[in-house]
Amino acid sequence: MTTTSKHDPAALFRDRRVLITGGLGFVGSNLARRLVQAGARVTIVDSLIPEYGGNRFNIEDISGEVAVNISDVRDVHSMRTHVHGQEFLFNLAGQTSHMDSMQDPFTDLEINCRAQLSILEACRHHNPGIKVVFASTRQLYGRPDYLPVDEKHLLRPVDVNGVNKMAGEWFHILYNNVYGIRACALRLTNTIGPRMRVKDARQTFVGVWVRYLVEGKPFEVWGGDQLRDFTYVDDAVDAFLLAASSESANGRVFNLGGDRVVSLRELATMLAKLGGANDAFVVREFPADRKVIDIGDYFSDFSAIRDALGWSPRVTLAEGLARTVAFYREHLVPYL
Amino acid sequence: MTTTSKHDPAALFRDRRVLITGGLGFVGSNLARRLVQAGARVTIVDSLIPEYGGNRFNIEDISGEVAVNISDVRDVHSMRTHVHGQEFLFNLAGQTSHMDSMQDPFTDLEINCRAQLSILEACRHHNPGIKVVFASTRQLYGRPDYLPVDEKHLLRPVDVNGVNKMAGEWFHILYNNVYGIRACALRLTNTIGPRMRVKDARQTFVGVWVRYLVEGKPFEVWGGDQLRDFTYVDDAVDAFLLAASSESANGRVFNLGGDRVVSLRELATMLAKLGGANDAFVVREFPADRKVIDIGDYFSDFSAIRDALGWSPRVTLAEGLARTVAFYREHLVPYL
Repeated sequence: MTTTSKHDPAALFRDRRVLITGGLGFVGSNLARRLVQAGARVTIVDSLIPEYGGNRFNIEDISGEVAVNISDVRDVHSMRTHVHGQEFLFNLAGQTSHMDSMQDPFTDLEINCRAQLSILEACRHHNPGIKVVFASTRQLYGRPDYLPVDEKHLLRPVDVNGVNKMAGEWFHILYNNVYGIRACALRLTNTIGPRMRVKDARQTFVGVWVRYLVEGKPFEVWGGDQLRDFTYVDDAVDAFLLAASSESANGRVFNLGGDRVVSLRELATMLAKLGGANDAFVVREFPADRKVIDIGDYFSDFSAIRDALGWSPRVTLAEGLARTVAFYREHLVPYL
Repeated sequence: MTTTSKHDPAALFRDRRVLITGGLGFVGSNLARRLVQAGARVTIVDSLIPEYGGNRFNIEDISGEVAVNISDVRDVHSMRTHVHGQEFLFNLAGQTSHMDSMQDPFTDLEINCRAQLSILEACRHHNPGIKVVFASTRQLYGRPDYLPVDEKHLLRPVDVNGVNKMAGEWFHILYNNVYGIRACALRLTNTIGPRMRVKDARQTFVGVWVRYLVEGKPFEVWGGDQLRDFTYVDDAVDAFLLAASSESANGRVFNLGGDRVVSLRELATMLAKLGGANDAFVVREFPADRKVIDIGDYFSDFSAIRDALGWSPRVTLAEGLARTVAFYREHLVPYL
């Protein structure tokens, strides 16, 4: 149980009116819980599209303490109503699957690009005093030129999702700079933790691994040598709260990162130990259609947000994986 | 009159099937003329939306030698038909006004972002062997960190047009990299020459200056100290032809540039000399709504395209201005 204190960034949100798009999703619901515990007045907007991350079970324990509205960020009229009167918008709704973005590029564009512009237009016309924090992604960088990747790295997205998220992120920065709609963006790396989608790999491949582990079936590791970093969801929530609280974040983009860098094979081995089996996973070659949009090694330099907002990851990868597996051992069924 | 020779990049296009979107516009019509002279089989697609650059007069002298289809790049069905059977697509159609993109951001998005994706999807499904050259813009860079700006400079667009063009450009690079639809992009700086829009500043501020000069009225220079570079349209056409001809251009973005860098005040003075008047212009303060999206000084490093494709500007700024003014002295009326 999280408790709020003067050192907890959530404490600043007592009685504040907060809107979370994608609030029934993985990061959104963890953020909602922290804000509810801190006494914020939270409204969640979520489309509950089955392929995305929204799941009513994600807020089961706080359902009486948040207002939930099922609607889509593409619904201009609904969003106009929702932004009205809010002090903070945590803008997390998005289509996250790289593969789906290639198979249905226009849906990805409508959600990750066009809807972002319409949300910002709604803020400009109906609530210009709102503060917005946008959930962006390291996917914008594409295949890194150098490691760790900092925010000075060129953006060279390798899939449709990356292009649309890039546009969505920059609409936020633009509306900050031109119209004074205070906004910033966090470029999330792989985020793990309770309430992530485990049904399939649409949100994160780690979800499927955890599910198979809990089900006692071997999971598949594609490739295995790729390096990655991971943010535990509570740390990601901290970053959103800090970014929302700080005027110095306005107009900026910040990488999130993890406490260590591991290969996918190392990650699989760490997970397997939690399962207690030696044959918990098999390593396979990358499928061709995924290889072409894979980014190779990635890990981020998060010194910008550390220096500007005092953020750094506090939950180790090992601890984060342990908490995640423990959660799904108890609550797998609502996620299948 | 341009003549083709073995050194003329247009010579390679004899009998080739070429589609030009925005082909009734400024750069598109000059490109069409060069290709017709070289014996290419040219089809032009243009929406003739009055606020954009299309003008039937632009191809008056070659109208019997090109196929013209009035349709909009947002028309998915029309575009599917048009890309069919073409060997080259010069993809120049776009909304170019920065101010219009702020006032009507969704139209800009539909044309500069969504339609680009649908054109590429049409190519992927119906003509994957086509080669595409996309007209991008230096506007993607925003306010430069350093000068001259090369392609390693971060993209930080300062207006909605810049964000959408950024997405449109990257869809091209993505479809090249993932699907092998050969594509590259040219980031144009200010382009000047015959057939540019002079009715207003929607395409380039130089257009209005030239119009006023030819009409014998003083033109307004906003600010005056900003540095800029300029590409004469024939040189821009050369760059499109070279990029289309070269397999080494696939998947790349290239800056265009000019033979020299001048302040707007110097440019105005050069133009004024062509008009023969001492009071040809007045210097005014930047209007507030434009100042906020102005990029300050800009000029480009075009060494990448010089090294890769052998392109460099051949028409000096002075000569380009002289040819432009001469054209509008003869043909102003069709552009008003």
